[in-house]
Amino acid sequence: MYEVEVKVPAELGVVRDRLEALEAARVGSVVQADTYYNAPHRDFAETDEALRIRSERSDDGTEETRVTYKGPLVDEETKTREEFETGIEDDETIDAILTSLDFEPTATVRKDRERFSLDGYTVTLDSVDGVGEYVEVETEVAGESDLEAAREGAYDVLERLELDPDDQLRTSYLGLLLES
Amino acid sequence: MYEVEVKVPAELGVVRDRLEALEAARVGSVVQADTYYNAPHRDFAETDEALRIRSERSDDGTEETRVTYKGPLVDEETKTREEFETGIEDDETIDAILTSLDFEPTATVRKDRERFSLDGYTVTLDSVDGVGEYVEVETEVAGESDLEAAREGAYDVLERLELDPDDQLRTSYLGLLLES
Repeated sequence: MYEVEVKVPAELGVVRDRLEALEAARVGSVVQADTYYNAPHRDFAETDEALRIRSERSDDGTEETRVTYKGPLVDEETKTREEFETGIEDDETIDAILTSLDFEPTATVRKDRERFSLDGYTVTLDSVDGVGEYVEVETEVAGESDLEAAREGAYDVLERLELDPDDQLRTSYLGLLLES
Repeated sequence: MYEVEVKVPAELGVVRDRLEALEAARVGSVVQADTYYNAPHRDFAETDEALRIRSERSDDGTEETRVTYKGPLVDEETKTREEFETGIEDDETIDAILTSLDFEPTATVRKDRERFSLDGYTVTLDSVDGVGEYVEVETEVAGESDLEAAREGAYDVLERLELDPDDQLRTSYLGLLLES
């Protein structure tokens, strides 16, 4: 499975109006707090790894915490990396375990995300604390041969929302936060 | 909260008969697999820490996985140590995350545990793979001043089960497995 994701800065109020005019289905909204940790025995900024605790509260009242490890890129071309993720009962306890093992929290990215569905793509309106407002358009494809068509489709969705694919940003929210 | 725990080697069939004769209440049974990990940046055998993933299957069909960090003793006298434990959705994924971070599984302790309740104590019949059969008698007390009375009570329970408190072992199952 490959993920195609395009992100551009945008004014969310304007995009939301446009989504409603296009009768896009509203999927729901969540608040996410992502804390990234660095390891005591190597520097993840150098090894291109990430260890993240994500706490998410949905508008339906559910809360969940997940731990995710992302390995270094194994294929530069397709941006493929190993990723392991599983649910955790309690976010404060997993933080206590990691910090006891001398993993250090380096940054926390907080964002409100509102998701819509349009033309088979997920359109996410992200308001990221200390970073700004962004729209992400994404989908998944089964094989590498479908990547190009999926990317073109994502650009079409952006254009229907009167956004410019050329504004595309490849930096993660963590990267944008650390640059800010 | 303090935990008082006394463990002696025993023939479980004989103890089970005795528990039934004493009309002890059977609480249930579980199968546990505890995998212990060592850290890449320090040796837990030297620092007296432990990182454990416990997968437990109960006789009522439920399965659960928990991760536990135990810090070094902070008080030799009362054997007090910091402990953090929380539930994990998937045991294979948390193993993949830990090994990706170069934590190494050092040993796995597998045991069948059958629990009874007698005189306010939990009596656990443990059959530990590669180690042997043991009975644990335990309870919790609120304050340090209650420890001595609780320990005496545990010895009384052992004697009702025709077991000898002098056979008491202080070595953990992990320690016994590593010695075997």
